[in-house]
Amino acid sequence: MMNRRPIYLDHAATSPLHPKALEAMLPYFTEKFGNPSSVYTIAQEARKALDEAHDKVASLLGARPTEIIFTSGGTESDNAAIKGVALAGRDWGDHIVTTNIEHHAVLHTCNFLEKQGFRVTYLPVDGDGLVTPAQVAAAVTEKTLLVSVMLANNEIGTIEPVAEIARAVKEKSPRTSVHTDAVQGLGALPVDVNRLGVDLLSLSSHKFRGPKGSGILYLRRGTPFTPQQSGGTQERNRRAGTENVAGIVGTAVAMELAVTEREKSAPRLAALRDRLIAGIEGSLEGVRLNGHRTQRLPNNVNFCFEFVEGESILLNLDFLGIAASSGSACTSASLEPSHVLLAIGVPVETAHGSVRFSLGPENTPEDMDYVVKALPGIIQRLRAMSPLAHQPR
Amino acid sequence: MMNRRPIYLDHAATSPLHPKALEAMLPYFTEKFGNPSSVYTIAQEARKALDEAHDKVASLLGARPTEIIFTSGGTESDNAAIKGVALAGRDWGDHIVTTNIEHHAVLHTCNFLEKQGFRVTYLPVDGDGLVTPAQVAAAVTEKTLLVSVMLANNEIGTIEPVAEIARAVKEKSPRTSVHTDAVQGLGALPVDVNRLGVDLLSLSSHKFRGPKGSGILYLRRGTPFTPQQSGGTQERNRRAGTENVAGIVGTAVAMELAVTEREKSAPRLAALRDRLIAGIEGSLEGVRLNGHRTQRLPNNVNFCFEFVEGESILLNLDFLGIAASSGSACTSASLEPSHVLLAIGVPVETAHGSVRFSLGPENTPEDMDYVVKALPGIIQRLRAMSPLAHQPR
Repeated sequence: MMNRRPIYLDHAATSPLHPKALEAMLPYFTEKFGNPSSVYTIAQEARKALDEAHDKVASLLGARPTEIIFTSGGTESDNAAIKGVALAGRDWGDHIVTTNIEHHAVLHTCNFLEKQGFRVTYLPVDGDGLVTPAQVAAAVTEKTLLVSVMLANNEIGTIEPVAEIARAVKEKSPRTSVHTDAVQGLGALPVDVNRLGVDLLSLSSHKFRGPKGSGILYLRRGTPFTPQQSGGTQERNRRAGTENVAGIVGTAVAMELAVTEREKSAPRLAALRDRLIAGIEGSLEGVRLNGHRTQRLPNNVNFCFEFVEGESILLNLDFLGIAASSGSACTSASLEPSHVLLAIGVPVETAHGSVRFSLGPENTPEDMDYVVKALPGIIQRLRAMSPLAHQPR
Repeated sequence: MMNRRPIYLDHAATSPLHPKALEAMLPYFTEKFGNPSSVYTIAQEARKALDEAHDKVASLLGARPTEIIFTSGGTESDNAAIKGVALAGRDWGDHIVTTNIEHHAVLHTCNFLEKQGFRVTYLPVDGDGLVTPAQVAAAVTEKTLLVSVMLANNEIGTIEPVAEIARAVKEKSPRTSVHTDAVQGLGALPVDVNRLGVDLLSLSSHKFRGPKGSGILYLRRGTPFTPQQSGGTQERNRRAGTENVAGIVGTAVAMELAVTEREKSAPRLAALRDRLIAGIEGSLEGVRLNGHRTQRLPNNVNFCFEFVEGESILLNLDFLGIAASSGSACTSASLEPSHVLLAIGVPVETAHGSVRFSLGPENTPEDMDYVVKALPGIIQRLRAMSPLAHQPR
């Protein structure tokens, strides 16, 4: 079986920069290179670009320009959001509520804060990866500074009921801030800060064809917040450091494209997703779709293949020109099974056999069919070598 | 007086990306766009580029590749260094020693830590902006976790005796870590972590013609360190977040150029600097050179002009096509007089009348002469309008 061209199916890990974003960025590297904080003419071009990026991103999220903080990525946004609210509220609260399927940028930040004396409740999810508004509200107390629940899970694609969660939290405790890591949602789901009712929201540019090293933190006006990066007065004193002007310009352009194309791209991706799911389920025994079957990101497919290692599947897929991942890219260097799969009840040995396919705009129905054709041979060969496959169950 | 072309004299604020750095970066935006943490072929190109950048930067600093952490800029590097050492040593110490002329990325980070219960000694400097090794060592106690003294001041260009300071600190307290903000030094001074004897060192890419949004933290092996950005396992668990591959590649290329060209570029810049200093001192009364006259960055010129506002001078210079700054770009949005000028004893009203010219590779002797010709008219016109100039002194 020969491959025609590489098939990239790891858009949840990262995506190629959109050519229009790159084109918009280029002048800010070498020509309009001024420091936006400076007063002279050449710097004002950079300042103008920053202001326009704030305006554009704000309008795409239903926010105010002053509520947009440009960061170095989704991880910084999550860290800044959670630590920022926690430290700002230390005088009245010490408690954070989150789920046990969040990205490590959220979970490890919560672990960090536990060492600083904060208390964290990690809510369990059901077998589809869902947490309920009632569950979250029940965990909130008068000492709860922050609730952080992701918009959609990066590994299994399950979409959480964030708007309902935010409403339930605010009803019980109006001063509790609500944060959502929406990194996987932008371009796939509607992301409007008022419809979601959140106070903080994290985005990562390279997940929606913007540049790596750039991200966004939405911070609702009036939300108590202690900046995590101290220094100059950039981003209205909320994120010190010379602004990554080119990265910010590219972020705004890529985001506008992702958001405006969503109505067309999301149904198209969902059809590809369903074709791949049906194809895999129709051609292999001992497979399990991870995540909610319908309340799911349009571009996410995640399967466990019994009796085989995910890494072995990936290497075989790579040999055929197919790029996929097991779990998230951020944890792929680790030998631990996915915390998300364990949280939805997948046994440890099966969790090691998971593969995530995350689809993007250049993928075609033929790509899906190629994967469906390639997989059975790989899985059968690996199972034939697997001691686990021959044990009585 | 007509200008021939814009003259950019604010390289300490930021510099245009080197075309060779941009060229090296471009493939990593759209072609070799993989996430370095992924396992498949396309991602391994990005991983290889990251590894090579670690190697190159390490060898330029006299460090090991594993001691290099790529960050989002000089401000993040300073924050990560200072908070990272402080939090890691909380069990045995609570004290930090620094100077009162550090960049705000250091000073405001220290202020942040004071609110977390740490104690900070801000050492005064002399009229030239110098702190002595004896002064620093005298401030160090058995509770001192960290000493942070900049390699060269960003406003007045004074070069601090960091190697001697590090030696004096280590003699008195071997477990105290020594950090230097070397942001203004790279490309202007030799920067070797072993000759300096420091445990941590911060760099900012856009100051040496690398991209904005990228920086470096050198962290000596064995230095106790608590990462400030939690999440994935990137940068050997010391800085979570998908790596800004293009930015890192551009950083390494620009750094190599800056370091290898230094032996030629530094004397050339120093000659231009001295030409500008002599020209200004020879053509105007009531001027004061700020910073040490010889122990000074080769590209820094900083003057106070009595009885006039720095901002007014800058606007007039801009009108003639000359881009300069008052104080640092990071504080230019503020109306406060420079903390550095106040620290070296400049009176508040004179501190408001300061202008920094920071030179770069494209500047020529003719540029210096043009500024020297332009300034007297501007200063005399502004002084004629100034109420201060007519008061008895």
